[in-house]
Amino acid sequence: MTYTIYLSGEIHSPWREQIKDGILKNQLDINVLSPITDHDSSDNIGSRILGSEQNNFWKDHKSAKINSLRTTNYLGKSDIVIIKFGDKYKQWNAAFDAGTAAGLGIPTIVMHNSDLTHALKEIDAAAFAVTETPDQVIEILKYISQP
Amino acid sequence: MTYTIYLSGEIHSPWREQIKDGILKNQLDINVLSPITDHDSSDNIGSRILGSEQNNFWKDHKSAKINSLRTTNYLGKSDIVIIKFGDKYKQWNAAFDAGTAAGLGIPTIVMHNSDLTHALKEIDAAAFAVTETPDQVIEILKYISQP
Amino acid sequence: MTYTIYLSGEIHSPWREQIKDGILKNQLDINVLSPITDHDSSDNIGSRILGSEQNNFWKDHKSAKINSLRTTNYLGKSDIVIIKFGDKYKQWNAAFDAGTAAGLGIPTIVMHNSDLTHALKEIDAAAFAVTETPDQVIEILKYISQP
Amino acid sequence: MTYTIYLSGEIHSPWREQIKDGILKNQLDINVLSPITDHDSSDNIGSRILGSEQNNFWKDHKSAKINSLRTTNYLGKSDIVIIKFGDKYKQWNAAFDAGTAAGLGIPTIVMHNSDLTHALKEIDAAAFAVTETPDQVIEILKYISQP
Amino acid sequence: MTYTIYLSGEIHSPWREQIKDGILKNQLDINVLSPITDHDSSDNIGSRILGSEQNNFWKDHKSAKINSLRTTNYLGKSDIVIIKFGDKYKQWNAAFDAGTAAGLGIPTIVMHNSDLTHALKEIDAAAFAVTETPDQVIEILKYISQP
Amino acid sequence: MTYTIYLSGEIHSPWREQIKDGILKNQLDINVLSPITDHDSSDNIGSRILGSEQNNFWKDHKSAKINSLRTTNYLGKSDIVIIKFGDKYKQWNAAFDAGTAAGLGIPTIVMHNSDLTHALKEIDAAAFAVTETPDQVIEILKYISQP
Amino acid sequence: MTYTIYLSGEIHSPWREQIKDGILKNQLDINVLSPITDHDSSDNIGSRILGSEQNNFWKDHKSAKINSLRTTNYLGKSDIVIIKFGDKYKQWNAAFDAGTAAGLGIPTIVMHNSDLTHALKEIDAAAFAVTETPDQVIEILKYISQP
Amino acid sequence: MTYTIYLSGEIHSPWREQIKDGILKNQLDINVLSPITDHDSSDNIGSRILGSEQNNFWKDHKSAKINSLRTTNYLGKSDIVIIKFGDKYKQWNAAFDAGTAAGLGIPTIVMHNSDLTHALKEIDAAAFAVTETPDQVIEILKYISQP
Repeated sequence: MTYTIYLSGEIHSPWREQIKDGILKNQLDINVLSPITDHDSSDNIGSRILGSEQNNFWKDHKSAKINSLRTTNYLGKSDIVIIKFGDKYKQWNAAFDAGTAAGLGIPTIVMHNSDLTHALKEIDAAAFAVTETPDQVIEILKYISQP
Repeated sequence: MTYTIYLSGEIHSPWREQIKDGILKNQLDINVLSPITDHDSSDNIGSRILGSEQNNFWKDHKSAKINSLRTTNYLGKSDIVIIKFGDKYKQWNAAFDAGTAAGLGIPTIVMHNSDLTHALKEIDAAAFAVTETPDQVIEILKYISQP
Repeated sequence: MTYTIYLSGEIHSPWREQIKDGILKNQLDINVLSPITDHDSSDNIGSRILGSEQNNFWKDHKSAKINSLRTTNYLGKSDIVIIKFGDKYKQWNAAFDAGTAAGLGIPTIVMHNSDLTHALKEIDAAAFAVTETPDQVIEILKYISQP
Repeated sequence: MTYTIYLSGEIHSPWREQIKDGILKNQLDINVLSPITDHDSSDNIGSRILGSEQNNFWKDHKSAKINSLRTTNYLGKSDIVIIKFGDKYKQWNAAFDAGTAAGLGIPTIVMHNSDLTHALKEIDAAAFAVTETPDQVIEILKYISQP
Repeated sequence: MTYTIYLSGEIHSPWREQIKDGILKNQLDINVLSPITDHDSSDNIGSRILGSEQNNFWKDHKSAKINSLRTTNYLGKSDIVIIKFGDKYKQWNAAFDAGTAAGLGIPTIVMHNSDLTHALKEIDAAAFAVTETPDQVIEILKYISQP
Repeated sequence: MTYTIYLSGEIHSPWREQIKDGILKNQLDINVLSPITDHDSSDNIGSRILGSEQNNFWKDHKSAKINSLRTTNYLGKSDIVIIKFGDKYKQWNAAFDAGTAAGLGIPTIVMHNSDLTHALKEIDAAAFAVTETPDQVIEILKYISQP
Repeated sequence: MTYTIYLSGEIHSPWREQIKDGILKNQLDINVLSPITDHDSSDNIGSRILGSEQNNFWKDHKSAKINSLRTTNYLGKSDIVIIKFGDKYKQWNAAFDAGTAAGLGIPTIVMHNSDLTHALKEIDAAAFAVTETPDQVIEILKYISQP
Repeated sequence: MTYTIYLSGEIHSPWREQIKDGILKNQLDINVLSPITDHDSSDNIGSRILGSEQNNFWKDHKSAKINSLRTTNYLGKSDIVIIKFGDKYKQWNAAFDAGTAAGLGIPTIVMHNSDLTHALKEIDAAAFAVTETPDQVIEILKYISQP
């Protein structure tokens, strides 16, 4: 069985590429889906296509809605959602994705440093594995992909 | 029809009481559900009932799981989930609740100051109303509760 | 068993009152739910509570979202959705409600004059009864409410 | 991931072809589904296959039911439903499709001129993007289809 | 817990009354729902309310649709569906109700004489109990209603 | 889009082959699923594999259960369920399949002679098309399969 | 909010009474549901009502099916399923109930001695709390029932 | 139609290989999914990837959670779940899988010796076939896979 995984969260570190590399090297039968990770493109897509807004709230609103056309579909079709939290920025959208997965009954793997444990306890408690590194995620994917 | 609402998020300001007061004053037919908002009690409930843990991860895990027995039930039975974000703490659990509501198809009302707009754009985009004050929430509840 | 019905559509004729009267007169065990039918109040609720907008699109958007907090809940909890089409205005929201009921698997009764038959054929085809008058609706409700 | 999109609504302008052309030119991995857009064929299919009716209501009914064998399946399997409203005709079936998508939890993109904004506010409010031209739709599809 | 049961099938024998009597006598906490069992009323309800039809197919169609407003709601809200088959008439609607319960995941109790066993094997195989008499049904209801 | 159809009901006439031939001739993109139509094999499969039974009820039970492993899966994965009623035998399993499709929300096409109209009115009322011949079914499949 | 809990598993110790006592003493707003815990009655209910069987397999089958009319309904309507494992007997039905709750998305609390930890690891891993005594369960119910 | 089957339960006998051989020999169009059946690997996977634990409860917990990433996905995507019970060990996870399948509405085939009949009566009662040997399972799969 092919797994489809969705990689949610942090966009400022190369963790997505590390996981993709691990999947390639280990020849795992896994489809990888991701949100648009280009920050500027993602922030401005609404005004770029649908026209500019004076009010930043609506500028953000239009962009977020277009992005969620993708994320709603990708996340909703995934077998496992993997979410990386870092210490930069609020990353509320990562926590929102973790909640969406919980609401849809899709298992999650969370990745973050141990100093975030207390702040993420609800999200960790709902996860099937709490990891710290991409290597641990790859090991898990390898293990559950055995024939 | 009686609405059941769930009040998620910030526990350091009296917004829940303000909404409850508004409901009482306006005699709205609304059931109000909340998580346990006593911080210490909520953090230690796992070790208090099920035994202490040396590792803080498991201490948090046990508490978070017991708290989610309540939140999973309360949130899942709500007609509207109202989520308040503040600038203190990470509040990832609030974002997680917003996501859970989205995954379950339950409408949300979000409350936060306008300086959080960009960081909360995905959560705002999924909401039915983005407010800044408890009074606005009460006005909405009043409006939708008319006979 | 108590039925809960939702009365969607036309707001310029007294059909909702006629149905409510019929239910009272016949002492039927039926809860009646309706959208806000005050046109001005419904159009302006967004700007009144959440602040005015220069762009009419966003003014409409905010009002429509607050109204859908009510309609989503009311329609989604109904056993039967009754939708009245008239020849004034576009009434796309009535057709939208009929579609929502279809998507949720809730039976519908449609009410309209026979000159609208061709334009409403898809909505009629999905309905359990196509009526022309409130009296016919009351007769149906009476019939299905027998002990 | 391949998206499947369903193109609902207006049949008197070449918007479906424009979207298909844009998908081809941009080599997007998207399956396009549509209703039968031949007006006569669609209106008469019931009587043609199942026998004529004296009463136009039943003629329409039989045709609408056969058409909905296709639309129910196509729309229900789509990842995104795109609905075009024009100013000709009532187009209640387009609004019905938008409602069905909402009831099923499928994201929508709406297309219409700005003079229809007020009449379509409920449908726009439930959409992930409100566009005016096929080009805007293609731009959105291009954006969300990036690897 | 109160059980709600739906009594489907045969209308030419007093089995429904016997079950209701048994529930009363044993003071069981059970709500009993039934279709309209007056044959003439049920056959003619469509033409009586919505106008006569020359073609019997449409006469039947309109009546069946109005009756299904009730049965769809009643059966869909039941905890247990009890279906009685007799040797008179085709009773395809009883088998249809058994299938609907199966599709909705609602448990069934079937009642029929042993000479119908082979013809009803698919329906019996999906049932939680196959009985021959109202007394057996009452015994089951008594047993599962114990405090 | 490929349709998957399930052919339920009568096994004493060659209607399944006629529909398959029509699909082949018209090169329609349709998968055809059927129950086991060999009467003896289907009746005895339980005792043949799992051991004989003295009581015919259990013999039938074991066979029906094994057959439903197939029918539950096939019917549940179909886009359209086509059900043929004849005047021989009770054919309660055909009506049961029609009900299962209704409970699962899968559209049906019914096929039968007009003299069965009254007895089948509930099942016809839930159908998207009521036909009399395989040719009509093929015409419908051709129509809804157009590109 | 009133919780409904279902008490599954071990019938040879007074743990159900201890939990009910704790609920009473603490005046918790909780409905308690249980299976039939009279062993003989539960084993023989099938033959007693529906007639004896020579083959024990069918005797057990008929009883188990009647019991599951109750357990399917009770468990399926619970907010929390509490399952007690002991070291006597196989108690596969307790594990089956835990799985059913998991399949339905209902949270569980498990109760067992620590020497069963390894054998129950999959069931514990799916639980929201793993307890050893009725007192711990009562403490959890008290905590999550606070106003 | 291709069936996907999941083989749950006993890992100390070669029954999985026998079923796979039977599928190959008979050229059945069936995908076979299984849990990780290497006992040591499965028990230690949590500590191996995510770090060791002093407390065996958490060691088991982490391993069970990672294993359930696989089993939740595999079982949830199966058309039929086949569960083998033996007399060694508690095998509560096998019963848990049977329950999960029941909760998800997936048909099961159970395999066990007749001396376990009474202990497994609830699980057998929910099954579509109760077998004793892999050959019987293969015969069933052959039968339901006929064209």
